Amino acid sequence: MHSHSLQFTAESSSNGIVERDFTVDGVPGVLWSPASGTGRAPLVLMGHGGGNHKKHPAMSGRARLLVAGCGFHVAVIDAPGHGDRPRSAHDEAEIAELFRARAAGEPEGPIVVRYNDHLAELAVPEYLALLDALQELPEIGTDGPVGYWGINMGTAIGIPFVAVEPRITAAVFGQHWPDVLADKAKQITVPIEFDLQWDDEHISREEGLALFDAFASPEKSLHVNAGRHKELPRFEAESAVRFFARHLGRAGTSPA
Amino acid sequence: MHSHSLQFTAESSSNGIVERDFTVDGVPGVLWSPASGTGRAPLVLMGHGGGNHKKHPAMSGRARLLVAGCGFHVAVIDAPGHGDRPRSAHDEAEIAELFRARAAGEPEGPIVVRYNDHLAELAVPEYLALLDALQELPEIGTDGPVGYWGINMGTAIGIPFVAVEPRITAAVFGQHWPDVLADKAKQITVPIEFDLQWDDEHISREEGLALFDAFASPEKSLHVNAGRHKELPRFEAESAVRFFARHLGRAGTSPA
Repeated sequence: MHSHSLQFTAESSSNGIVERDFTVDGVPGVLWSPASGTGRAPLVLMGHGGGNHKKHPAMSGRARLLVAGCGFHVAVIDAPGHGDRPRSAHDEAEIAELFRARAAGEPEGPIVVRYNDHLAELAVPEYLALLDALQELPEIGTDGPVGYWGINMGTAIGIPFVAVEPRITAAVFGQHWPDVLADKAKQITVPIEFDLQWDDEHISREEGLALFDAFASPEKSLHVNAGRHKELPRFEAESAVRFFARHLGRAGTSPA
Repeated sequence: MHSHSLQFTAESSSNGIVERDFTVDGVPGVLWSPASGTGRAPLVLMGHGGGNHKKHPAMSGRARLLVAGCGFHVAVIDAPGHGDRPRSAHDEAEIAELFRARAAGEPEGPIVVRYNDHLAELAVPEYLALLDALQELPEIGTDGPVGYWGINMGTAIGIPFVAVEPRITAAVFGQHWPDVLADKAKQITVPIEFDLQWDDEHISREEGLALFDAFASPEKSLHVNAGRHKELPRFEAESAVRFFARHLGRAGTSPA
Protein backbone atom coordinates (compact mmCIF):
# COMPACT_ATOMS: atom_id res chain seq x y z
CA MET A 1 0.00 0.00 0.00
CA HIS A 2 1.34 3.39 -1.04
CA SER A 3 0.50 6.61 0.73
CA HIS A 4 -2.04 8.71 -1.13
CA SER A 5 -3.21 12.18 -0.37
CA LEU A 6 -6.75 11.91 1.05
CA GLN A 7 -8.23 15.28 1.95
CA PHE A 8 -11.72 15.82 3.30
CA THR A 9 -13.26 19.02 1.92
CA ALA A 10 -16.83 19.05 3.29
CA GLU A 11 -19.00 17.15 5.75
CA SER A 12 -22.73 17.00 6.36
CA SER A 13 -25.09 14.63 8.10
CA SER A 14 -28.73 13.63 7.76
CA ASN A 15 -30.92 10.70 8.72
CA GLY A 16 -28.06 8.88 10.45
CA ILE A 17 -25.72 9.11 7.46
CA VAL A 18 -22.53 11.19 7.36
CA GLU A 19 -21.53 12.45 3.89
CA ARG A 20 -17.92 13.54 3.46
CA ASP A 21 -16.58 15.03 0.24
CA PHE A 22 -12.89 14.36 -0.37
CA THR A 23 -10.16 14.30 -2.97
CA VAL A 24 -7.61 11.51 -3.43
CA ASP A 25 -4.58 12.65 -5.39
CA GLY A 26 -6.83 15.42 -6.70
CA VAL A 27 -9.72 13.16 -7.81
CA PRO A 28 -13.02 14.25 -6.20
CA GLY A 29 -15.11 11.68 -4.35
CA VAL A 30 -17.66 11.18 -1.63
CA LEU A 31 -17.72 8.85 1.37
CA TRP A 32 -20.99 7.94 3.10
CA SER A 33 -20.77 6.38 6.58
CA PRO A 34 -23.04 5.50 9.50
CA ALA A 35 -23.37 8.48 11.87
CA SER A 36 -23.07 6.27 14.91
CA GLY A 37 -19.93 4.29 14.24
CA THR A 38 -19.46 1.06 16.17
CA GLY A 39 -15.93 0.06 15.28
CA ARG A 40 -14.83 -0.94 11.82
CA ALA A 41 -17.32 -1.71 9.08
CA PRO A 42 -17.14 -3.16 5.55
CA LEU A 43 -16.62 -0.84 2.57
CA VAL A 44 -18.35 -0.81 -0.81
CA LEU A 45 -16.74 1.15 -3.67
CA MET A 46 -19.13 2.25 -6.40
CA GLY A 47 -18.69 3.40 -9.99
CA HIS A 48 -21.25 5.72 -11.59
CA GLY A 49 -22.79 5.47 -15.05
CA GLY A 50 -21.71 7.28 -18.21
CA GLY A 51 -22.68 10.96 -18.30
CA ASN A 52 -23.45 10.91 -14.56
CA HIS A 53 -21.41 11.75 -11.50
CA LYS A 54 -20.55 10.68 -7.96
CA LYS A 55 -23.65 12.20 -6.36
CA HIS A 56 -26.22 11.19 -8.99
CA PRO A 57 -29.40 9.97 -7.23
CA ALA A 58 -28.60 6.39 -8.28
CA MET A 59 -25.35 6.66 -6.28
CA SER A 60 -26.73 8.41 -3.21
CA GLY A 61 -29.78 6.12 -3.21
CA ARG A 62 -27.66 2.95 -3.28
CA ALA A 63 -25.38 4.42 -0.61
CA ARG A 64 -28.38 5.11 1.62
CA LEU A 65 -29.49 1.46 1.35
CA LEU A 66 -25.99 0.19 2.19
CA VAL A 67 -25.26 2.61 5.04
CA ALA A 68 -28.69 2.65 6.69
CA GLY A 69 -29.47 -1.00 5.96
CA CYS A 70 -26.11 -2.65 6.60
CA GLY A 71 -23.95 -0.12 8.46
CA PHE A 72 -21.37 -0.16 5.65
CA HIS A 73 -19.12 2.64 4.35
CA VAL A 74 -19.69 3.56 0.70
CA ALA A 75 -17.40 5.58 -1.57
CA VAL A 76 -17.49 6.75 -5.17
CA ILE A 77 -15.25 9.02 -7.24
CA ASP A 78 -16.02 11.03 -10.36
CA ALA A 79 -14.83 9.18 -13.46
CA PRO A 80 -12.38 11.02 -15.73
CA GLY A 81 -14.21 13.72 -17.70
CA HIS A 82 -17.27 13.40 -15.43
CA GLY A 83 -18.82 15.35 -12.54
CA ASP A 84 -16.45 17.94 -11.10
CA ARG A 85 -13.56 16.87 -13.35
CA PRO A 86 -12.57 18.68 -16.57
CA ARG A 87 -13.29 17.16 -19.96
CA SER A 88 -10.29 16.63 -22.22
CA ALA A 89 -10.40 17.27 -25.96
CA HIS A 90 -10.62 13.47 -26.34
CA ASP A 91 -13.66 13.38 -24.01
CA GLU A 92 -15.35 16.13 -26.03
CA ALA A 93 -14.67 14.35 -29.32
CA GLU A 94 -16.00 10.99 -28.09
CA ILE A 95 -19.12 12.54 -26.57
CA ALA A 96 -19.78 14.44 -29.81
CA GLU A 97 -19.37 11.20 -31.76
CA LEU A 98 -21.80 9.43 -29.41
CA PHE A 99 -24.42 12.16 -29.84
CA ARG A 100 -23.88 12.13 -33.60
CA ALA A 101 -24.41 8.35 -33.77
CA ARG A 102 -27.48 8.58 -31.54
CA ALA A 103 -29.03 11.31 -33.69
CA ALA A 104 -28.28 9.31 -36.83
CA GLY A 105 -29.83 6.14 -35.37
CA GLU A 106 -26.50 4.31 -35.59
CA PRO A 107 -25.41 1.75 -32.95
CA GLU A 108 -23.95 3.37 -29.83
CA GLY A 109 -22.16 0.21 -28.68
CA PRO A 110 -18.87 0.55 -30.60
CA ILE A 111 -18.38 4.12 -29.38
CA VAL A 112 -19.33 3.41 -25.76
CA VAL A 113 -17.11 0.31 -25.67
CA ARG A 114 -14.12 2.21 -27.03
CA TYR A 115 -14.60 5.35 -24.91
CA ASN A 116 -15.32 3.46 -21.67
CA ASP A 117 -12.25 1.31 -22.23
CA HIS A 118 -10.17 4.50 -22.48
CA LEU A 119 -11.74 5.87 -19.29
CA ALA A 120 -11.16 2.56 -17.47
CA GLU A 121 -7.43 2.73 -18.21
CA LEU A 122 -7.34 6.09 -16.45
CA ALA A 123 -9.77 5.16 -13.67
CA VAL A 124 -8.39 1.81 -12.49
CA PRO A 125 -5.25 3.38 -10.91
CA GLU A 126 -7.53 5.99 -9.33
CA TYR A 127 -9.68 3.28 -7.71
CA LEU A 128 -6.53 1.53 -6.44
CA ALA A 129 -5.39 4.82 -4.88
CA LEU A 130 -8.90 5.38 -3.46
CA LEU A 131 -8.89 1.99 -1.76
CA ASP A 132 -5.36 2.49 -0.40
CA ALA A 133 -6.35 5.85 1.04
CA LEU A 134 -9.67 4.74 2.55
CA GLN A 135 -8.08 1.73 4.22
CA GLU A 136 -5.87 4.14 6.17
CA LEU A 137 -8.97 5.47 7.93
CA PRO A 138 -9.40 3.83 11.35
CA GLU A 139 -13.12 3.21 10.77
CA ILE A 140 -12.33 1.16 7.64
CA GLY A 141 -8.88 -0.39 8.10
CA THR A 142 -7.05 -2.95 6.00
CA ASP A 143 -8.60 -6.16 7.28
CA GLY A 144 -12.28 -5.66 6.45
CA PRO A 145 -14.16 -6.97 3.42
CA VAL A 146 -14.54 -4.67 0.41
CA GLY A 147 -17.15 -4.81 -2.35
CA TYR A 148 -17.51 -3.10 -5.72
CA TRP A 149 -20.83 -2.02 -7.34
CA GLY A 150 -21.10 -0.46 -10.78
CA ILE A 151 -23.53 -0.85 -13.70
CA ASN A 152 -23.03 0.47 -17.27
CA MET A 153 -19.82 2.56 -17.28
CA GLY A 154 -19.37 1.48 -13.64
CA THR A 155 -18.97 -2.05 -15.01
CA ALA A 156 -16.55 -0.98 -17.75
CA ILE A 157 -14.31 0.49 -15.03
CA GLY A 158 -15.14 -2.08 -12.37
CA ILE A 159 -14.34 -5.30 -14.25
CA PRO A 160 -10.71 -4.33 -15.02
CA PHE A 161 -10.40 -2.93 -11.48
CA VAL A 162 -11.72 -6.05 -9.72
CA ALA A 163 -9.68 -8.27 -12.07
CA VAL A 164 -6.43 -6.81 -10.69
CA GLU A 165 -7.53 -6.03 -7.11
CA PRO A 166 -7.63 -8.99 -4.72
CA ARG A 167 -8.99 -6.85 -1.87
CA ILE A 168 -12.42 -6.83 -3.58
CA THR A 169 -14.31 -9.89 -2.33
CA ALA A 170 -17.74 -9.47 -3.98
CA ALA A 171 -19.03 -7.35 -6.85
CA VAL A 172 -22.22 -6.28 -8.64
CA PHE A 173 -21.94 -5.54 -12.36
CA GLY A 174 -24.22 -5.31 -15.38
CA GLN A 175 -25.32 -3.85 -18.69
CA HIS A 176 -22.19 -3.72 -20.82
CA TRP A 177 -20.71 -5.39 -23.88
CA PRO A 178 -18.31 -8.36 -23.79
CA ASP A 179 -15.91 -7.04 -26.46
CA VAL A 180 -13.10 -5.78 -24.24
CA LEU A 181 -14.47 -6.89 -20.85
CA ALA A 182 -14.94 -10.66 -21.28
CA ASP A 183 -11.20 -11.38 -21.16
CA LYS A 184 -10.89 -9.44 -17.90
CA ALA A 185 -14.02 -11.05 -16.45
CA LYS A 186 -12.31 -14.42 -16.93
CA GLN A 187 -9.80 -13.34 -14.26
CA ILE A 188 -12.52 -12.67 -11.68
CA THR A 189 -13.37 -15.44 -9.22
CA VAL A 190 -15.18 -13.63 -6.38
CA PRO A 191 -18.99 -13.90 -6.05
CA ILE A 192 -20.82 -11.62 -8.46
CA GLU A 193 -24.37 -10.51 -9.20
CA PHE A 194 -24.93 -9.33 -12.77
CA ASP A 195 -27.88 -7.34 -14.16
CA LEU A 196 -29.08 -7.23 -17.72
CA GLN A 197 -32.21 -6.04 -19.49
CA TRP A 198 -34.01 -8.52 -21.76
CA ASP A 199 -35.16 -5.83 -24.21
CA ASP A 200 -32.05 -3.63 -24.16
CA GLU A 201 -32.00 -1.58 -27.35
CA HIS A 202 -28.20 -1.21 -27.19
CA ILE A 203 -26.83 -4.48 -25.77
CA SER A 204 -28.10 -7.68 -27.40
CA ARG A 205 -29.13 -10.70 -25.30
CA GLU A 206 -26.21 -12.68 -26.73
CA GLU A 207 -23.74 -9.94 -25.78
CA GLY A 208 -25.11 -9.57 -22.25
CA LEU A 209 -25.17 -13.33 -21.63
CA ALA A 210 -21.64 -13.70 -23.05
CA LEU A 211 -20.26 -11.21 -20.53
CA PHE A 212 -22.02 -12.96 -17.62
CA ASP A 213 -20.75 -16.31 -18.89
CA ALA A 214 -17.14 -15.06 -18.93
CA PHE A 215 -16.78 -14.63 -15.15
CA ALA A 216 -14.75 -17.44 -13.57
CA SER A 217 -16.62 -17.00 -10.28
CA PRO A 218 -17.97 -20.28 -8.86
CA GLU A 219 -20.76 -18.20 -7.29
CA LYS A 220 -22.43 -15.97 -9.84
CA SER A 221 -26.04 -14.85 -10.28
CA LEU A 222 -27.60 -13.23 -13.32
CA HIS A 223 -30.72 -11.09 -12.93
CA VAL A 224 -32.53 -10.44 -16.20
CA ASN A 225 -35.59 -8.20 -16.30
CA ALA A 226 -38.03 -7.43 -19.07
CA GLY A 227 -37.54 -3.86 -20.25
CA ARG A 228 -35.27 -1.51 -22.13
CA HIS A 229 -31.77 -0.26 -21.28
CA LYS A 230 -32.79 2.42 -18.79
CA GLU A 231 -35.62 0.42 -17.19
CA LEU A 232 -33.54 -1.63 -14.72
CA PRO A 233 -36.05 -2.11 -11.88
CA ARG A 234 -35.47 -0.39 -8.58
CA PHE A 235 -35.78 -3.69 -6.70
CA GLU A 236 -32.46 -4.78 -8.24
CA ALA A 237 -30.73 -2.20 -6.04
CA GLU A 238 -32.32 -3.85 -3.00
CA SER A 239 -31.20 -7.23 -4.31
CA ALA A 240 -27.62 -5.95 -4.68
CA VAL A 241 -27.70 -4.67 -1.09
CA ARG A 242 -28.77 -8.11 0.14
CA PHE A 243 -25.98 -9.63 -1.97
CA PHE A 244 -23.41 -7.42 -0.22
CA ALA A 245 -24.98 -8.12 3.17
CA ARG A 246 -24.55 -11.87 2.49
CA HIS A 247 -20.96 -11.57 1.32
CA LEU A 248 -19.51 -8.67 3.34
CA GLY A 249 -21.91 -8.52 6.25
CA ARG A 250 -20.95 -8.96 9.83
CA ALA A 251 -23.12 -11.34 11.83
CA GLY A 252 -26.39 -9.75 12.78
CA THR A 253 -26.51 -7.13 10.06
CA SER A 254 -29.55 -7.30 7.87
CA PRO A 255 -30.55 -5.01 5.02
CA ALA A 256 -33.76 -3.00 4.97
CA MET B 1 -67.00 -21.27 -8.63
CA HIS B 2 -68.28 -24.80 -8.01
CA SER B 3 -68.61 -26.35 -4.61
CA HIS B 4 -65.86 -28.79 -3.80
CA SER B 5 -65.52 -31.09 -0.85
CA LEU B 6 -62.82 -29.64 1.45
CA GLN B 7 -62.27 -31.76 4.56
CA PHE B 8 -59.70 -31.01 7.24
CA THR B 9 -58.18 -34.22 8.59
CA ALA B 10 -55.47 -33.08 11.03
CA GLU B 11 -54.21 -29.90 12.66
CA SER B 12 -51.03 -28.97 14.48
CA SER B 13 -49.26 -25.76 15.39
CA SER B 14 -45.68 -24.69 16.03
CA ASN B 15 -43.69 -21.45 15.97
CA GLY B 16 -46.73 -19.37 15.14
CA ILE B 17 -47.73 -21.50 12.13
CA VAL B 18 -50.87 -23.66 11.95
CA GLU B 19 -50.56 -26.72 9.70
CA ARG B 20 -53.83 -28.29 8.54
CA ASP B 21 -53.97 -31.47 6.47
CA PHE B 22 -57.00 -31.71 4.19
CA THR B 23 -58.46 -33.42 1.17
CA VAL B 24 -60.25 -31.68 -1.72
CA ASP B 25 -62.37 -34.08 -3.74
CA GLY B 26 -60.16 -36.80 -2.29
CA VAL B 27 -56.81 -35.20 -3.20
CA PRO B 28 -54.58 -34.82 -0.11
CA GLY B 29 -53.07 -31.42 0.66
CA VAL B 30 -51.76 -29.21 3.41
CA LEU B 31 -52.60 -25.61 4.35
CA TRP B 32 -50.17 -23.52 6.40
CA SER B 33 -51.54 -20.34 8.03
CA PRO B 34 -50.51 -17.71 10.59
CA ALA B 35 -51.54 -18.82 14.10
CA SER B 36 -52.71 -15.34 14.99
CA GLY B 37 -55.02 -14.43 12.15
CA THR B 38 -55.83 -10.75 11.63
CA GLY B 39 -58.56 -10.85 9.04
CA ARG B 40 -58.07 -12.10 5.51
CA ALA B 41 -54.62 -12.70 4.06
CA PRO B 42 -53.24 -13.48 0.60
CA LEU B 43 -52.82 -17.09 -0.53
CA VAL B 44 -49.92 -18.78 -2.31
CA LEU B 45 -50.51 -22.15 -3.98
CA MET B 46 -47.40 -24.27 -4.45
CA GLY B 47 -46.52 -27.25 -6.64
CA HIS B 48 -43.87 -29.74 -5.51
CA GLY B 49 -41.07 -31.24 -7.59
CA GLY B 50 -41.04 -34.60 -9.35
CA GLY B 51 -40.58 -37.58 -7.01
CA ASN B 52 -41.35 -35.38 -4.00
CA HIS B 53 -44.54 -34.64 -2.08
CA LYS B 54 -46.59 -31.92 -0.40
CA LYS B 55 -44.56 -31.92 2.85
CA HIS B 56 -41.07 -32.21 1.36
CA PRO B 57 -38.72 -29.85 3.25
CA ALA B 58 -38.57 -27.57 0.18
CA MET B 59 -42.35 -27.10 0.52
CA SER B 60 -42.52 -26.68 4.30
CA GLY B 61 -39.46 -24.42 4.24
CA ARG B 62 -40.96 -22.10 1.60
CA ALA B 63 -44.27 -22.13 3.47
CA ARG B 64 -42.52 -21.09 6.69
CA LEU B 65 -40.92 -18.10 4.93
CA LEU B 66 -44.28 -17.02 3.46
CA VAL B 67 -46.38 -17.53 6.60
CA ALA B 68 -43.91 -16.23 9.19
CA GLY B 69 -42.44 -13.53 6.97
CA CYS B 70 -45.53 -12.23 5.18
CA GLY B 71 -48.55 -13.54 7.09
CA PHE B 72 -49.80 -15.38 3.98
CA HIS B 73 -51.69 -18.67 3.69
CA VAL B 74 -49.84 -21.38 1.72
CA ALA B 75 -51.31 -24.57 0.27
CA VAL B 76 -49.93 -27.50 -1.71
CA ILE B 77 -51.46 -30.79 -2.87
CA ASP B 78 -49.79 -34.06 -3.76
CA ALA B 79 -49.43 -34.40 -7.54
CA PRO B 80 -51.00 -37.47 -9.18
CA GLY B 81 -48.89 -40.55 -8.41
CA HIS B 82 -46.97 -38.67 -5.70
CA GLY B 83 -46.95 -38.48 -1.90
CA ASP B 84 -50.01 -40.15 -0.36
CA ARG B 85 -51.61 -40.84 -3.75
CA PRO B 86 -51.47 -44.21 -5.51
CA ARG B 87 -49.30 -44.74 -8.57
CA SER B 88 -51.06 -45.92 -11.71
CA ALA B 89 -49.56 -48.48 -14.07
CA HIS B 90 -48.73 -45.53 -16.35
CA ASP B 91 -46.87 -43.80 -13.48
CA GLU B 92 -44.88 -46.98 -12.79
CA ALA B 93 -43.98 -47.40 -16.45
CA GLU B 94 -42.83 -43.79 -16.88
CA ILE B 95 -40.79 -43.85 -13.66
CA ALA B 96 -39.16 -47.11 -14.75
CA GLU B 97 -38.35 -45.57 -18.12
CA LEU B 98 -36.83 -42.51 -16.41
CA PHE B 99 -34.62 -44.68 -14.19
CA ARG B 100 -33.60 -46.79 -17.20
CA ALA B 101 -32.60 -43.68 -19.20
CA ARG B 102 -30.72 -42.26 -16.20
CA ALA B 103 -28.79 -45.51 -15.68
CA ALA B 104 -27.98 -45.68 -19.39
CA GLY B 105 -26.74 -42.09 -19.40
CA GLU B 106 -29.44 -41.09 -21.88
CA PRO B 107 -31.16 -37.65 -21.78
CA GLU B 108 -33.92 -37.47 -19.19
CA GLY B 109 -35.61 -34.46 -20.78
CA PRO B 110 -37.88 -36.17 -23.30
CA ILE B 111 -39.27 -38.54 -20.64
CA VAL B 112 -39.74 -35.82 -17.98
CA VAL B 113 -41.40 -33.48 -20.51
CA ARG B 114 -43.84 -36.19 -21.63
CA TYR B 115 -44.63 -37.56 -18.15
CA ASN B 116 -45.01 -34.13 -16.53
CA ASP B 117 -47.33 -33.03 -19.35
CA HIS B 118 -49.50 -36.06 -18.59
CA LEU B 119 -49.52 -35.24 -14.87
CA ALA B 120 -50.34 -31.59 -15.57
CA GLU B 121 -53.46 -32.59 -17.50
CA LEU B 122 -54.67 -34.41 -14.40
CA ALA B 123 -53.44 -31.82 -11.89
CA VAL B 124 -54.74 -28.57 -13.41
CA PRO B 125 -58.41 -29.37 -12.62
CA GLU B 126 -57.29 -30.39 -9.12
CA TYR B 127 -55.63 -26.99 -8.57
CA LEU B 128 -58.75 -25.23 -9.85
CA ALA B 129 -60.84 -27.23 -7.34
CA LEU B 130 -58.29 -26.47 -4.61
CA LEU B 131 -58.52 -22.75 -5.22
CA ASP B 132 -62.34 -22.85 -5.35
CA ALA B 133 -62.44 -24.70 -2.03
CA LEU B 134 -59.87 -22.56 -0.23
CA GLN B 135 -61.58 -19.34 -1.28
CA GLU B 136 -64.67 -20.53 0.59
CA LEU B 137 -62.71 -20.28 3.86
CA PRO B 138 -63.45 -16.98 5.64
CA GLU B 139 -59.74 -16.32 6.34
CA ILE B 140 -58.98 -16.47 2.59
CA GLY B 141 -62.09 -15.34 0.72
CA THR B 142 -62.63 -14.63 -2.94
CA ASP B 143 -61.30 -11.08 -3.16
CA GLY B 144 -57.68 -11.50 -2.03
CA PRO B 145 -54.63 -11.85 -4.24
CA VAL B 146 -53.37 -15.38 -5.04
CA GLY B 147 -49.89 -16.47 -6.11
CA TYR B 148 -48.45 -19.70 -7.51
CA TRP B 149 -44.94 -21.07 -6.80
CA GLY B 150 -43.53 -24.22 -8.37
CA ILE B 151 -40.12 -25.21 -9.78
CA ASN B 152 -39.35 -28.31 -11.89
CA MET B 153 -42.55 -30.43 -12.02
CA GLY B 154 -44.23 -27.60 -10.11
CA THR B 155 -43.60 -25.49 -13.20
CA ALA B 156 -44.88 -28.17 -15.59
CA ILE B 157 -48.17 -28.17 -13.66
CA GLY B 158 -48.13 -24.48 -12.79
CA ILE B 159 -47.72 -22.94 -16.25
CA PRO B 160 -50.83 -24.61 -17.73
CA PHE B 161 -52.69 -23.85 -14.48
CA VAL B 162 -51.80 -20.15 -14.37
CA ALA B 163 -52.44 -19.87 -18.13
CA VAL B 164 -56.13 -20.72 -17.59
CA GLU B 165 -56.62 -19.25 -14.09
CA PRO B 166 -57.09 -15.46 -13.93
CA ARG B 167 -57.28 -15.52 -10.12
CA ILE B 168 -53.47 -16.05 -10.00
CA THR B 169 -51.86 -12.60 -10.02
CA ALA B 170 -48.13 -13.45 -9.64
CA ALA B 171 -46.09 -16.63 -10.08
CA VAL B 172 -42.62 -18.09 -9.53
CA PHE B 173 -41.51 -20.79 -11.99
CA GLY B 174 -38.27 -22.35 -13.17
CA GLN B 175 -36.14 -25.25 -14.39
CA HIS B 176 -38.18 -26.90 -17.11
CA TRP B 177 -38.12 -27.39 -20.89
CA PRO B 178 -39.96 -25.17 -23.40
CA ASP B 179 -41.27 -28.03 -25.59
CA VAL B 180 -44.86 -28.19 -24.36
CA LEU B 181 -44.81 -25.25 -21.94
CA ALA B 182 -43.73 -22.32 -24.13
CA ASP B 183 -47.07 -22.10 -25.92
CA LYS B 184 -48.89 -21.96 -22.59
CA ALA B 185 -46.41 -19.45 -21.16
CA LYS B 186 -47.35 -17.14 -24.04
CA GLN B 187 -50.83 -16.89 -22.48
CA ILE B 188 -49.45 -15.69 -19.12
CA THR B 189 -49.29 -11.94 -18.51
CA VAL B 190 -48.98 -11.67 -14.70
CA PRO B 191 -45.61 -10.79 -13.10
CA ILE B 192 -43.28 -13.78 -12.89
CA GLU B 193 -39.90 -14.65 -11.41
CA PHE B 194 -38.14 -17.53 -13.19
CA ASP B 195 -35.15 -19.58 -11.95
CA LEU B 196 -32.67 -21.48 -14.04
CA GLN B 197 -29.28 -23.04 -13.44
CA TRP B 198 -26.44 -22.01 -15.76
CA ASP B 199 -24.77 -25.43 -15.65
CA ASP B 200 -27.90 -27.59 -15.64
CA GLU B 201 -26.95 -31.05 -16.88
CA HIS B 202 -30.53 -31.74 -18.06
CA ILE B 203 -31.91 -28.41 -19.35
CA SER B 204 -29.69 -26.50 -21.81
CA ARG B 205 -29.21 -22.74 -21.50
CA GLU B 206 -31.04 -22.24 -24.78
CA GLU B 207 -34.03 -24.31 -23.57
CA GLY B 208 -34.21 -22.52 -20.22
CA LEU B 209 -33.93 -19.06 -21.80
CA ALA B 210 -36.53 -19.96 -24.45
CA LEU B 211 -39.10 -20.81 -21.78
CA PHE B 212 -38.42 -17.54 -19.90
CA ASP B 213 -38.67 -15.63 -23.17
CA ALA B 214 -42.08 -17.14 -23.95
CA PHE B 215 -43.96 -15.47 -21.08
CA ALA B 216 -46.06 -12.52 -22.26
CA SER B 217 -45.71 -10.84 -18.85
CA PRO B 218 -44.63 -7.19 -19.07
CA GLU B 219 -42.98 -7.70 -15.67
CA LYS B 220 -40.73 -10.74 -15.67
CA SER B 221 -37.41 -11.46 -13.94
CA LEU B 222 -34.99 -14.28 -14.68
CA HIS B 223 -32.59 -15.46 -11.98
CA VAL B 224 -29.72 -17.55 -13.31
CA ASN B 225 -27.19 -19.07 -10.94
CA ALA B 226 -23.96 -20.94 -11.59
CA GLY B 227 -24.38 -24.59 -10.69
CA ARG B 228 -26.03 -27.84 -11.70
CA HIS B 229 -29.71 -28.84 -11.77
CA LYS B 230 -30.09 -29.57 -8.07
CA GLU B 231 -27.91 -26.68 -6.86
CA LEU B 232 -30.53 -23.89 -7.00
CA PRO B 233 -29.29 -21.61 -4.18
CA ARG B 234 -31.34 -21.31 -1.03
CA PHE B 235 -31.39 -17.50 -1.34
CA GLU B 236 -33.66 -17.87 -4.39
CA ALA B 237 -36.43 -19.01 -2.03
CA GLU B 238 -35.96 -15.79 -0.06
CA SER B 239 -36.04 -13.85 -3.32
CA ALA B 240 -39.31 -15.54 -4.33
CA VAL B 241 -40.83 -14.61 -0.96
CA ARG B 242 -39.88 -10.97 -1.50
CA PHE B 243 -41.41 -11.21 -5.00
CA PHE B 244 -44.72 -12.40 -3.51
CA ALA B 245 -44.54 -9.75 -0.77
CA ARG B 246 -44.17 -7.09 -3.51
CA HIS B 247 -47.02 -8.40 -5.63
CA LEU B 248 -49.49 -9.86 -3.11
CA GLY B 249 -48.50 -8.09 0.07
CA ARG B 250 -50.76 -5.83 2.01
CA ALA B 251 -49.34 -2.48 3.06
CA GLY B 252 -46.93 -2.87 5.93
CA THR B 253 -46.06 -6.52 5.39
CA SER B 254 -42.40 -7.15 4.86
CA PRO B 255 -40.58 -10.45 4.43
CA ALA B 256 -37.88 -11.68 6.78
